[in-house]
Amino acid sequence: MTAKPQTEGAQGVSAQTEAAHDRVIIFDTTLRDGEQCPGATMTLEEKLQVADLLDEMGVDVIEAGFPIASNGDFESVSMIAARLKNASVAALARAAFKDIDRAAEAIKAARRPRIHTFISTSPVHMKWKLQKTPDEVHEMVIAQVSRARNHVDDVEWSCEDGTRTEHDFLCRVIESAIKAGATTINVPDTVGYTTPDEYFALIKMIRERVPNSDKAIFSVHCHDDLGMAVANSLAGVRAGARQIECTVNGIGERAGNAAMEEVVMAIRTRADVFPFATGIKTEMLTRASKLVSAVTSFPVQYNKAVVGRNAFAHESGIHQDGMLKHTQTYEIMTPESVGVKQTSLVMGKHSGRNAFREKLKMLGYQLGDNEFEDAFNRFKDLADRKKHVYDEDIEALVDQEIATAQDRIKLVSLSVIAGTHGPQRATMRLEVDGTRMLEEAEGNGPVDAVFNAIKALVPHEAKLELYQVHAVTEGTDAQAEVSVRLSEGGKTVTGRGADPDTLVASAMAYLAALNKLILKRQQLHSTAAE
Amino acid sequence: MTAKPQTEGAQGVSAQTEAAHDRVIIFDTTLRDGEQCPGATMTLEEKLQVADLLDEMGVDVIEAGFPIASNGDFESVSMIAARLKNASVAALARAAFKDIDRAAEAIKAARRPRIHTFISTSPVHMKWKLQKTPDEVHEMVIAQVSRARNHVDDVEWSCEDGTRTEHDFLCRVIESAIKAGATTINVPDTVGYTTPDEYFALIKMIRERVPNSDKAIFSVHCHDDLGMAVANSLAGVRAGARQIECTVNGIGERAGNAAMEEVVMAIRTRADVFPFATGIKTEMLTRASKLVSAVTSFPVQYNKAVVGRNAFAHESGIHQDGMLKHTQTYEIMTPESVGVKQTSLVMGKHSGRNAFREKLKMLGYQLGDNEFEDAFNRFKDLADRKKHVYDEDIEALVDQEIATAQDRIKLVSLSVIAGTHGPQRATMRLEVDGTRMLEEAEGNGPVDAVFNAIKALVPHEAKLELYQVHAVTEGTDAQAEVSVRLSEGGKTVTGRGADPDTLVASAMAYLAALNKLILKRQQLHSTAAE
Repeated sequence: MTAKPQTEGAQGVSAQTEAAHDRVIIFDTTLRDGEQCPGATMTLEEKLQVADLLDEMGVDVIEAGFPIASNGDFESVSMIAARLKNASVAALARAAFKDIDRAAEAIKAARRPRIHTFISTSPVHMKWKLQKTPDEVHEMVIAQVSRARNHVDDVEWSCEDGTRTEHDFLCRVIESAIKAGATTINVPDTVGYTTPDEYFALIKMIRERVPNSDKAIFSVHCHDDLGMAVANSLAGVRAGARQIECTVNGIGERAGNAAMEEVVMAIRTRADVFPFATGIKTEMLTRASKLVSAVTSFPVQYNKAVVGRNAFAHESGIHQDGMLKHTQTYEIMTPESVGVKQTSLVMGKHSGRNAFREKLKMLGYQLGDNEFEDAFNRFKDLADRKKHVYDEDIEALVDQEIATAQDRIKLVSLSVIAGTHGPQRATMRLEVDGTRMLEEAEGNGPVDAVFNAIKALVPHEAKLELYQVHAVTEGTDAQAEVSVRLSEGGKTVTGRGADPDTLVASAMAYLAALNKLILKRQQLHSTAAE
Repeated sequence: MTAKPQTEGAQGVSAQTEAAHDRVIIFDTTLRDGEQCPGATMTLEEKLQVADLLDEMGVDVIEAGFPIASNGDFESVSMIAARLKNASVAALARAAFKDIDRAAEAIKAARRPRIHTFISTSPVHMKWKLQKTPDEVHEMVIAQVSRARNHVDDVEWSCEDGTRTEHDFLCRVIESAIKAGATTINVPDTVGYTTPDEYFALIKMIRERVPNSDKAIFSVHCHDDLGMAVANSLAGVRAGARQIECTVNGIGERAGNAAMEEVVMAIRTRADVFPFATGIKTEMLTRASKLVSAVTSFPVQYNKAVVGRNAFAHESGIHQDGMLKHTQTYEIMTPESVGVKQTSLVMGKHSGRNAFREKLKMLGYQLGDNEFEDAFNRFKDLADRKKHVYDEDIEALVDQEIATAQDRIKLVSLSVIAGTHGPQRATMRLEVDGTRMLEEAEGNGPVDAVFNAIKALVPHEAKLELYQVHAVTEGTDAQAEVSVRLSEGGKTVTGRGADPDTLVASAMAYLAALNKLILKRQQLHSTAAE
């Protein structure tokens, strides 16, 4: 079985024909490198939502997770593998047979399965992390890549910390990896250390010195610790790499990975100097950015390139003047090309089921019957309480419709008294495993009072790591979207709630997180029991 | 008078000696390019706070504003000019005598004054924005630079949209600008369009072709629309530029400018490939980032390089393992080098005046006697209501101590009833110009009720553009910091409030914004009357 990206590879062509808009493979690792950064943990349902969107928008390879890491990771990789329509699915594996076999098992239902195995090759990593000699590492590469090729035809091998690896050794292991069957060779800048010139020279050197380099696609994977991940990735492509590993919004370990929206739009906007093409439907970039920001609760900074709220906004008189006279004076790409739409007034309390269904379709949602009914009921509730219902309100409301069937704790009612006189007091009724319970609690502020009431009703030791309120739309009657992150024994979960009443949204978010935590505890027990 | 950076210039030295850690001038434009982006408007007091910090941290040139734009801009540039201890102060001016004369007047009290004048040189800008021929533009450059040199010795000239300017014309105007007395030549990538290779070649071409290029310092000014502002800036420096224009957190028009913390740390971390030095005390970068984020209410994304909360965080098991064995496996710079400190428990209700004064000094604050008393009283209030008072709490509390003497509207008391039963109700007492007034209002959610009460007491037409809640510290009894942005007739203001009760903080933030708006209206009237 040959994965799709390979048929579009760049090997063996001359520099001359490379100038004719060669295809660059977009490898998205939002669900692996992105999800492993502190606080970005997603639920299974959230991962499926993200995977579906990435598949639809034309990502070539979706790295879905690290199956050996946990049963949850294994399950989500398996489910993603089974449902992707176009993209290849990659599963990560360290250089160990049990890792590789588990990865292969997770992706066995995929139409286009890829195993991505890696090992560190830099002196500092081999000495301190692996505690192995270069020769031992070299042997492991051959053994592991061969093992992976026994499972699938599409095998990617990464030399972790490649940019700090000694060149002779790097060329030697890459040659062996290709000989053992690796079809993609990734040279990551794991610590975000390299510069465009240096990375260009490195990729070029490898392609020139490794005798069988034309038998594999080369890949770049850059971290943004010094703010150069995008420029480095593109330098690598100019040197002959034909796969870019990236994430939506640039999330990932530490300063994150190269941002997909930036590398894709740079290639599209500067086709004169980057004569390459990607398969990404750029009009979906903004929607992907919003979804990933919502499921991780990671805010996108306003001046973020391409997807920040100010990316297409012009304030200063000088620029406005120029824009009015001719948009090209200050705009190098159009807002429409990345899917930025004006907030539009769409629905009200008189909108019916059909109109709502049409709107959901337009916003790109496909809900099952039950999900649709739930969403419609929540929409009617909202329309009763809020004059204008915007697209963003509906998106917030639908994004909340993630399997709550398993929730053990449900909010029944809440009333709060707050203000300058303090202490603030919350009266809350919850349903826990079907039983209704009532509690009144005081707190230092109304949110504290609400959370104290929950703690009194459902005692737990989890620590509140993040409490965040977003107004979903404009105006004082905006729906509030609250994110709450809880951690307990190393596990982190994020819950969201949306309601015009911030305090109700806060309670919903806290309970959503708590429900996830309870689910995680159960999963942990079932894992330990294996 | 010669500005300090010029004495450290790089002109006339060979490529060989350039390798010996040449000084690169850091030109910060947070207060000009940063402040002119939508929503980032700062008050005078906030600008002074930022300017003082930039001065202290070793910025060489602080672009303080655009004096002709408004009386407010003129006033803030003048005040900053008068107080800077080390940095040069630059005032922006278009190519018009009245602009340049006004800029000169604003910086006349400065120890190191610089006039920064600019005009567009690209075909698209000259044709559509300026509606002038290249020859007309060329004449204007000579006239305006000469005019500026009559006022000060330190004159910077920028060819706006330089990266899209025709090369022969660019060289011709640069030569004339230097002849007319420009001591710094800035070649901005105004639309964020260029790439490292292209920008390197451009700066190199200019330095080689312009006969008198050794008489000026070349400067880079890059925007991040394609995610390459930092790499482009550094490519320009490698090609011989010796000034980098940048902003804290990379704020600025659209996708913003090159981020100061990233260019500075890239130079410091990769001294082997960027053999340059800056005068920045890197340990102050994190504090600068927090201050600018607080005064603009622009969040810093978690994976922002250098200053994001995750920039030094490691979650995945693989990375943790490596880190435990040897920090160098995944860290290329230390958290301490950019001033990241652990959140430390510091103060409680028994802490006295002296301990508080020591703590403020440690956090880098110098308050006047009245400000100190106000801050101390607020601290005691907070300590009564909150078990643990962290450094961040104190920073939030002090940052709020910005001249509220002029406030016409003050919050006296507030009580709110909220919850799932709705409608929510707020009872509020305000003091407006010394008169106490009481109002009760309903709303769609408690925040809406609070804001409706304010609107009933102080009728106004301003539009709510942003409502944001941050928890300042961890824990459910965290102090909430709320930001509210209002706009009215094209003017935008941001107010902040901090209190353990989110609703009280919301009221304070809304009133702070409203007070600023009233102040702006008054200033506008006094301007119109001139």
